[in-house]
Amino acid sequence: MAAAIPRRALRCPRISNLGSRAAQQFPTGRPGQLPGCIWQRHFSIQAPRCVKLTSETYPNLKRDPRFATITEDHVSFFKGVLGSETAIIDGVSKDASDELVAFNQDWMNKYRGQSSLVLKPENTNQVSKILKYCNENSLAVVPQGGNTGLVGGSVPVFDEIVVSTQRMNKIKSFDEVSGSLVLEAGVVLEVADGYLAERGHIFPLDLGAKGSCHVGGNVAANAGGLRLLRYGSLHGSVLGIEAVLPDGTIVDDLGTLRKNNTGYDIKQLFIGGEGTIGMITGISILCPRRSAAMNVCYFGLESYEQVQNAFQEAKKQLSEILSAFEMMDGHTQNLVSKVSGKPLPIEGEYPFYCLIETSGSNSEHDSEKLQTFLEDVMEKGIVQDGTMAQDQTQILNLWSFRERIPEALQHWGGVYKYDVSIPIQDMYKLVEDTRARLTKAGLLGDDDSYPAIDALGYGHIGDSNLHLNVAMRRYDKRVEKELEPFIYEWIAGRKGSISAEHGLGLQKKPYIQYSRSETMVGLMKQIKNLYDPNGIMNPYKYI
Amino acid sequence: MAAAIPRRALRCPRISNLGSRAAQQFPTGRPGQLPGCIWQRHFSIQAPRCVKLTSETYPNLKRDPRFATITEDHVSFFKGVLGSETAIIDGVSKDASDELVAFNQDWMNKYRGQSSLVLKPENTNQVSKILKYCNENSLAVVPQGGNTGLVGGSVPVFDEIVVSTQRMNKIKSFDEVSGSLVLEAGVVLEVADGYLAERGHIFPLDLGAKGSCHVGGNVAANAGGLRLLRYGSLHGSVLGIEAVLPDGTIVDDLGTLRKNNTGYDIKQLFIGGEGTIGMITGISILCPRRSAAMNVCYFGLESYEQVQNAFQEAKKQLSEILSAFEMMDGHTQNLVSKVSGKPLPIEGEYPFYCLIETSGSNSEHDSEKLQTFLEDVMEKGIVQDGTMAQDQTQILNLWSFRERIPEALQHWGGVYKYDVSIPIQDMYKLVEDTRARLTKAGLLGDDDSYPAIDALGYGHIGDSNLHLNVAMRRYDKRVEKELEPFIYEWIAGRKGSISAEHGLGLQKKPYIQYSRSETMVGLMKQIKNLYDPNGIMNPYKYI
Repeated sequence: MAAAIPRRALRCPRISNLGSRAAQQFPTGRPGQLPGCIWQRHFSIQAPRCVKLTSETYPNLKRDPRFATITEDHVSFFKGVLGSETAIIDGVSKDASDELVAFNQDWMNKYRGQSSLVLKPENTNQVSKILKYCNENSLAVVPQGGNTGLVGGSVPVFDEIVVSTQRMNKIKSFDEVSGSLVLEAGVVLEVADGYLAERGHIFPLDLGAKGSCHVGGNVAANAGGLRLLRYGSLHGSVLGIEAVLPDGTIVDDLGTLRKNNTGYDIKQLFIGGEGTIGMITGISILCPRRSAAMNVCYFGLESYEQVQNAFQEAKKQLSEILSAFEMMDGHTQNLVSKVSGKPLPIEGEYPFYCLIETSGSNSEHDSEKLQTFLEDVMEKGIVQDGTMAQDQTQILNLWSFRERIPEALQHWGGVYKYDVSIPIQDMYKLVEDTRARLTKAGLLGDDDSYPAIDALGYGHIGDSNLHLNVAMRRYDKRVEKELEPFIYEWIAGRKGSISAEHGLGLQKKPYIQYSRSETMVGLMKQIKNLYDPNGIMNPYKYI
Repeated sequence: MAAAIPRRALRCPRISNLGSRAAQQFPTGRPGQLPGCIWQRHFSIQAPRCVKLTSETYPNLKRDPRFATITEDHVSFFKGVLGSETAIIDGVSKDASDELVAFNQDWMNKYRGQSSLVLKPENTNQVSKILKYCNENSLAVVPQGGNTGLVGGSVPVFDEIVVSTQRMNKIKSFDEVSGSLVLEAGVVLEVADGYLAERGHIFPLDLGAKGSCHVGGNVAANAGGLRLLRYGSLHGSVLGIEAVLPDGTIVDDLGTLRKNNTGYDIKQLFIGGEGTIGMITGISILCPRRSAAMNVCYFGLESYEQVQNAFQEAKKQLSEILSAFEMMDGHTQNLVSKVSGKPLPIEGEYPFYCLIETSGSNSEHDSEKLQTFLEDVMEKGIVQDGTMAQDQTQILNLWSFRERIPEALQHWGGVYKYDVSIPIQDMYKLVEDTRARLTKAGLLGDDDSYPAIDALGYGHIGDSNLHLNVAMRRYDKRVEKELEPFIYEWIAGRKGSISAEHGLGLQKKPYIQYSRSETMVGLMKQIKNLYDPNGIMNPYKYI
């Protein structure tokens, strides 16, 4: 029960610590790059503050009385397993609240748990011993990687033990011929990608948090990111997984073969399983060759229909070299221009803009294809005006008009953010309907009397993935009531997904029925019960 | 028990019927194309003959006494569900042995079951009613698509009821913008691909049996095929699945979204599940744009090491346009030349040959890349000699030296075939070791006194997928004993897979431990028991 949690764990974090951590959290791939896709309903990136305990934010959420409270005896056992003082943060025997902050709190400052114990095993056998013991002693566990999640999936809610992959950070092998990389779960994504870059390869996943996130967490969350259009989902590129089940069983499926049709593909359940049926300790993944050439163009269009036409033409004419197709509405682009003080890359005003990136093995060929494509779509009247980057500086400038949207959006106040997947034809209509709804309710307008400034949309067209944002002057409960469940129902009515690439976590647990039938949720619960009958793995979350 | 099976179901097939069926079975994508990858130990494609009952071939295999025998009452129930005389082949109430042949026997004439009942539902609700009834009445079931499997997975062993997807053959929708195709399980792969070709798209899977196989069966078998190198595995491209569990539950996960992170990805268990936990009734799949240009080159190399070097260079220089990289040893190429009477595409003799195919949106660009690649690898001494196809006829001619290998191999007698996956470095060593082993045992040699003619190898280098073939003058038990378990142990020692792309079926059921640990097999059995506690789905097979 809550009363059993040592009070010192509840202390507020020291802002200076968090500030330094937040600053280091997201080294960016391109200058000015921010975490790409920030999930629903938060007030954007801001200076760390004393975050409310999750249990206070969600007073209806109660600690599961099945779970035992951590004692010094438990801690002794774990010390024995780990064999190192540095592998444990013990807030049970002593005050360790400063050290615990980074593990209890998410980087968006939305959630704060009350764990008093962090374990940092250095190998799979230690993880196995830890989970087995926790399972036998009814101790709840939260597996944690880089703690860069956006839905509260990687931090405790109450006093769950954090099992961190921080010390499991070895790259085990890379086969340059086949491109298969084997690494421990705690390797930072950017480290893995850098290692591959030196060997002419690329990690088939890229996202804003790459400087902090762990590959094990990426797989557990089934992260999407910027390279999905080109390299597909992790369900296709992950070749093998090593994971530990709550009973200590080691799922030893860390093969490196591209083809292996020998039985059920159990590992797939851990991809996107968010640490709720076991803890991923290692992965093997197929890594493509790194492209030698990159080209980027940016153009304006007169309607969302033309955006779709442009996407179809791009798939047709650029097919194998297309590596990104991003859509941004005029609202977002004007905002970026205003906030950054930079003129838009093309003259005139358009309701929609798109950015296309190509990656290939021959720069000249790719430029020619992109040039021909641009001429063709302009001739056909699909695109009104466009520009192509001539060098790396221009590439970065064009990308900045896509990547600086989140930054620009928080210029005035808060932002309600939704990251959703909707069949492509209907995608932008959600933004229009939301804007109309708030306007009609007298909550959105130009002057300061309205709480909402605007509803805006942008996203990965290639993946039918929309970022709907409602920019706010100030937080307003009335706006929230207009937005929810309206948006979820709207998405459900079009067979969309309320969680495109960020998972369910704590935040989306109550809403899964908008994207999955009762039958599917039932089947999922069956899987959860099969592997984790005592419910110790990442409780209070997911399904 | 076997005695309960109506005797008329045991009659030998009429050869004329089967002959016509076999002739229609594999319309080929390219002239002269044969089913690409034929699985282990059979005497190749030959005239249909009276096939031994599977129960006679495997006398240790006993009918599971838990299963009920089909009665006329059961048949009445099914007639009521299906509501059509043409939707049922009733060998219980009458003699229907001729019609039953095609459903009891596999196309390789290796397996023959004894089913007296075939049901052809036309929708998922009917499948649900059928399976529920079977589950409640302990009636065993074999889901069947185009019955083109290579491991005995799609035909009954004893008197299991065949539930065929033949009448579930509608293409339900195609979204040209996103490329998502939704179709019923019984659509023939070639029909789906033809439908997509008219719309500028391509099915992300291609294989020799495409004129007969059903897409539902492809997904159930997790078929690999010729396009895997480019478009990845079905675990990545299948967006959704509709399936029926033994208890009649409809798994309604037929979404078309590329991103949907809302819970465990249950559908993955059905991909490669070989119909053992449920029956797939519909799929949705992401289909790429069809490439406008195709180029092919063929070249000779001095060692297997150079084959690997060439593959690495191809990945580097051709990366995004590379769509096939096939390796054939000199033994296979000389054989094809000898049998077909055609000279090899290049002069001189080499121990290894490779064929590269590129697909892209611009023929000129691709030709230039391929030309540059060939010049580069020849200059570096990786490749000794090579040729590039100048037109469609030459493309077909070059491909024929890869595709006619299976045909050429059966010229003299039988062939022992193994389709395996091995880390790329070691791949060809299996062929050399097998050849040496048979030679040392005095079983392989040039004159007629030796039963084995040669051990040969070819395969999809890009997927680490080897086809090891032992060409025989005559069948010899001594050869078989030298080959097995030697080959399985050899593969297990290198963490390879005994089943690369064709599944386990009946044939590989006893050998899974060579590719999967006891733990993994245990976890698989847990999944089987979860979904099919009565074991009615495709019994006697898989794990």
